Amino acid sequence: MRALFDPKSVVLIGVSRQTGVGAYNGLEMLLNYGYQGKIFLVHPQAEEILGHKVYRRTLDLPEVPELAVIAVGRDRVLPVVHDCLTHGIRWFIIISQGFADADATGKQLQEQLLTLVQSYGARLLGPNTMGTFNAFTGFSSAFIDLARAPAPPPVSLVAQSGAPQVGAESFTGPLGKAIDLGNAADLGFIEALEYLEQDAQTEIIALHMEGLTQGRKFIDLASRLTRKKPLIVFKTGRSEAGAQAALSHTGSLVGQDEVFTAAFARAGVIRVNSAAAMIDAIQTLRKLPPLPGPRIGVVTASGALGIMAADALDQEGLMLGRLPRAIRENVEPKGPYWHHLHNPVDLWPIGMATGDFLQGVLEAIGAFLADPAIDGVLGLVPALDSELHQNIRLTPDFIDRLALRQFNKPLVLSIYGNHKEHISADLAPVPGVTCYASVEQACHALGLLYRYQQSLSRPVENLSPLPPSPHPAPKLEKKPTVLLGQTALEFLAPYRIPLLPSLLAPTPEEASAYAQECGYPVVLKIIAPAWVHKSDQGGVLLNLTTPQEVQAGFRHLQNIFNQVGSSAPLEGILVQKQIKGREILLGLKQDATFGPVVVCGLGGIFTEVLQDVAQTLAPISLAQAHDLLSTLKGFPLLQGYRGEPPIALPELAAALVNLSWLAIQEPELQELDINPLIATPAGCWAVDARIVLGK
Amino acid sequence: MRALFDPKSVVLIGVSRQTGVGAYNGLEMLLNYGYQGKIFLVHPQAEEILGHKVYRRTLDLPEVPELAVIAVGRDRVLPVVHDCLTHGIRWFIIISQGFADADATGKQLQEQLLTLVQSYGARLLGPNTMGTFNAFTGFSSAFIDLARAPAPPPVSLVAQSGAPQVGAESFTGPLGKAIDLGNAADLGFIEALEYLEQDAQTEIIALHMEGLTQGRKFIDLASRLTRKKPLIVFKTGRSEAGAQAALSHTGSLVGQDEVFTAAFARAGVIRVNSAAAMIDAIQTLRKLPPLPGPRIGVVTASGALGIMAADALDQEGLMLGRLPRAIRENVEPKGPYWHHLHNPVDLWPIGMATGDFLQGVLEAIGAFLADPAIDGVLGLVPALDSELHQNIRLTPDFIDRLALRQFNKPLVLSIYGNHKEHISADLAPVPGVTCYASVEQACHALGLLYRYQQSLSRPVENLSPLPPSPHPAPKLEKKPTVLLGQTALEFLAPYRIPLLPSLLAPTPEEASAYAQECGYPVVLKIIAPAWVHKSDQGGVLLNLTTPQEVQAGFRHLQNIFNQVGSSAPLEGILVQKQIKGREILLGLKQDATFGPVVVCGLGGIFTEVLQDVAQTLAPISLAQAHDLLSTLKGFPLLQGYRGEPPIALPELAAALVNLSWLAIQEPELQELDINPLIATPAGCWAVDARIVLGK
Repeated sequence: MRALFDPKSVVLIGVSRQTGVGAYNGLEMLLNYGYQGKIFLVHPQAEEILGHKVYRRTLDLPEVPELAVIAVGRDRVLPVVHDCLTHGIRWFIIISQGFADADATGKQLQEQLLTLVQSYGARLLGPNTMGTFNAFTGFSSAFIDLARAPAPPPVSLVAQSGAPQVGAESFTGPLGKAIDLGNAADLGFIEALEYLEQDAQTEIIALHMEGLTQGRKFIDLASRLTRKKPLIVFKTGRSEAGAQAALSHTGSLVGQDEVFTAAFARAGVIRVNSAAAMIDAIQTLRKLPPLPGPRIGVVTASGALGIMAADALDQEGLMLGRLPRAIRENVEPKGPYWHHLHNPVDLWPIGMATGDFLQGVLEAIGAFLADPAIDGVLGLVPALDSELHQNIRLTPDFIDRLALRQFNKPLVLSIYGNHKEHISADLAPVPGVTCYASVEQACHALGLLYRYQQSLSRPVENLSPLPPSPHPAPKLEKKPTVLLGQTALEFLAPYRIPLLPSLLAPTPEEASAYAQECGYPVVLKIIAPAWVHKSDQGGVLLNLTTPQEVQAGFRHLQNIFNQVGSSAPLEGILVQKQIKGREILLGLKQDATFGPVVVCGLGGIFTEVLQDVAQTLAPISLAQAHDLLSTLKGFPLLQGYRGEPPIALPELAAALVNLSWLAIQEPELQELDINPLIATPAGCWAVDARIVLGK
Repeated sequence: MRALFDPKSVVLIGVSRQTGVGAYNGLEMLLNYGYQGKIFLVHPQAEEILGHKVYRRTLDLPEVPELAVIAVGRDRVLPVVHDCLTHGIRWFIIISQGFADADATGKQLQEQLLTLVQSYGARLLGPNTMGTFNAFTGFSSAFIDLARAPAPPPVSLVAQSGAPQVGAESFTGPLGKAIDLGNAADLGFIEALEYLEQDAQTEIIALHMEGLTQGRKFIDLASRLTRKKPLIVFKTGRSEAGAQAALSHTGSLVGQDEVFTAAFARAGVIRVNSAAAMIDAIQTLRKLPPLPGPRIGVVTASGALGIMAADALDQEGLMLGRLPRAIRENVEPKGPYWHHLHNPVDLWPIGMATGDFLQGVLEAIGAFLADPAIDGVLGLVPALDSELHQNIRLTPDFIDRLALRQFNKPLVLSIYGNHKEHISADLAPVPGVTCYASVEQACHALGLLYRYQQSLSRPVENLSPLPPSPHPAPKLEKKPTVLLGQTALEFLAPYRIPLLPSLLAPTPEEASAYAQECGYPVVLKIIAPAWVHKSDQGGVLLNLTTPQEVQAGFRHLQNIFNQVGSSAPLEGILVQKQIKGREILLGLKQDATFGPVVVCGLGGIFTEVLQDVAQTLAPISLAQAHDLLSTLKGFPLLQGYRGEPPIALPELAAALVNLSWLAIQEPELQELDINPLIATPAGCWAVDARIVLGK
């Protein structure tokens, strides 16, 4: 990958002879960007372009460039690449469009291109890409004249489009390095992240993602990487409309959005849903230490803004910390006698009384920073153009006096008024402090720092390849495609999913004997092919409480079965303990991006009306199962509601863990519902299930 | 109010002799702002300030100024105001702090001030205010040097703080007029809005609100005003933490936040929860026509941005419209043969092929605007500093060619890249188009225009004073404080809340006769004082299905009552039809700001675990009752779930309407719960209730 970001030499193939406005001449852009390596040009007619010698064919080049950047029409890409490979070139950036991004022919061309490149052991970025840029060395493969930051920040971008590079100011802020994966025929997120993980010039990574193909590998890598460097992902194609647009825009698959969210959470990835949030998150995580706790001190020049901050902190799960005694004792007495301080600290009356507003700000922020009961500080201060108010403008020098590094707590500011852009620019290079356009964005930054801190305690994931199951189950010899009812339940047994005590009884007497054994009330069910929807056909009897009722019920069901008639024989009458408890749904599904996903929810209205389900990648640990259950809106019902005892959560969590392993042990499993599983204080039992196996 | 915004003459009392940096000299600010009216100064020692003659006492003034602006210490405010009143001044802005914003003494002082001013029939803005400014005439009472827009926009601000005036760039953008209500001892939101409603220089109103005292009057006024001028409210003190801060910051009451939301919706008020959202909303509603429907055409220079737009439009309840035939026939053929267009229209390959990207943008936007199946257009285009790309920058001239007025559809742009600020500034004065910092903000603007259009169809409210009830009920002679059970239910009957058929039976025989009449099964309940929590004490028998069971049950309850013993006699045994249906909660509460509020929800877990309730101001119409019910997450259960028939929604809605009128007819009502009301396909019946009456 070094050859893509920092090639010692490059050949440009497909550069136009036109230069200047509207020419999109890759050579011109590369020269503007300040690349110092060797540049070769190949063009069928031109003698020279912008003073650079041009070769007719790649094979004529006097040496083997490290990298070829190709921007010819799609029909000419394969022969051009073939020449390069023959000449010995092993790294390619294919700018050309019209491949999997366009039509069926383009898709075929892309496959042929990949096969060709791979047959030489070479690697390929694109097609349909702007390629890479590296503001440190001045390399750029773009056909757009990108601005090069004089002091490149340690921020790198991986995108599935060139737009975030072109409009970096609108998507990420200034960048040190960037790569556009384009159609990602060969090199993709994994390779880009593996490179940036090791890259000393990269301290924070921004990622624009439309789809993902190696979901589990990505999560493993990200979960390792995010312990060293924050990884912020703007995943698009979230809506159905967006997902459709994604399918027609790239060749990549878009998985279900909730699974992405769950998977990202597992990996410590910070997900944002807008470019504006990306810019703020990069600024925040680059410059500020994590927030160890939720207690914030707020300093303000206006009570109104203090209220806005209290609202916004609450929204972020943060809180106003206790007022430090130093503020009460040293700052409050400087104000009018009727002005009492609390947090948020309104310093305006003190500034008016002392004539030195900034001194009050300095003292109050300092006291908050020094207080061990405060985790982070928010300052809300004006900045006005008028020279009459130059005495209340924050300066870098002022911030320096706070000696932020000594406290290692974040200080975030929201500056308001018509001079705010100047102050923000002045403070941008000052370490340990950041400025935001609004109170709400400043509070969101603190929330982000808090969540980031919390995410650091998660375990590193190891999902691909998976460790062996802790309790292997025998595989079925012969698998029908869909399993229902009792067959499905029996399939679950070896995977340690608890089933309801039941017996397939051949006679009324054996039925009543078993009922006596497992305890009343019991249920009777006809078990026979074509009697799957038993209750609709009258094949189920509930609430039987005596041996007499069981025997009579048994004969009644026999009669019904005989009356309805069936080509297949009666397998028996199932006697099942009837239990009352919470209906739970447990399930598995295969996600197109991340593979097996385990799902849970309360049954009935919770899943059907309220869509109250939780999901994550399988397999999961007991702790993860508990976490998953506790995110359900209906969770309080499992903990005991209206004085009921709580259901057996450890057993339920264990069933969820075992189910999650089933998905791993049975790669042919497509879908599975246990619905319902009945959970009671004494345990939980699967009552009905539906399983789909096969490709 | 004209005297506050546009006084012909003003006296400043309490201006310091100090001027320049850090002096906060109100005279200096007023002169800087360019006021052309007569200015008088009163100061006990000074001879002149900034070349203006100073009078020792107000009584010495040669004429009666229209307005006095007072900024003396709180203890001197009353005598100063008294002098002004004696001299004949009738309008006051009291800048001074330390009143209800400070302590108990300040609160008393404020009350005395108000009494004094009112005794002369004068009016007062403040105390604790920056007062008003008027960029049209150049009047400002602020002690801050505010910038005056050369061409003041028709945007006015009403705030409960001076901060939004000081930092207008961060809270609203440029303003034409502004008023800070401060402690609002006298003049408040009502007076400010009544003035701005009539003010020809005001086309859009931004409001910063911490609390509100005349809730219903505000809603009536806003509901009338918003049909003429958009009213955007940033209500703070939303969180509990924020509300506490509000109480200690101002003397105003903060009502429950959900009631504010419901009340604002009734009045067509646009609520925003951040200053950034306020700025965008003002820009949007000032410059763009409403969006008549949800179908959006998107033009983009990047497929990736098209996907972001699809996501964001979906989030806003909008959709991608059908691609106009004109684009398919006239624009698509100009691109490479493999590039097919859909909506979002990705024009980059066409721009590369034709060399004229902007021409493609012009044609595509034009075709979307002209298509009757498209309601609004979103453009996502780059703007880069590099002179090599000056040919792809949008210009006002370019936008002019779209002749936006002829279509009367909104065109919103999100421009990205390092030249975006310049383009946004260039386009700012062009009518019919707005630019946003991100795709998501642009889509949110379209969503706002759509919701605004929809809000215009609501009825004008008439909540204060209320019309008489459509079916008056007799008032109870003597009211206990808390009514429970049967007493509470009987209280409801005259208000046409349906009660479950029941009879207070004196004998077993009469009980069984009534059961026969109303149909089995029935419930029996002990009715006696101290037997309110009947079921806990075993005083309720369910599911009685024969005359024998009813008579035996009757005697059983008599025995229980006699065994437990009670000082009060048995009133009887209640026989009640037992019905099965959905448990509903209907309720009333008195909101501190808006008065009676009607509440509904599904009972049980829906209210207790999921907090799934809906509320609005009482009284409501049948249509409003239906709307309210349909916002419940559990509403599908009322419409018929798992094949059940729907419950009797018209009867439920009617009960809600009648309950909402009860709150109006019984001003002493504090709280009321009907819990449960059982709703079945045949009707709905209140089964239990709890009513709190009294001050």
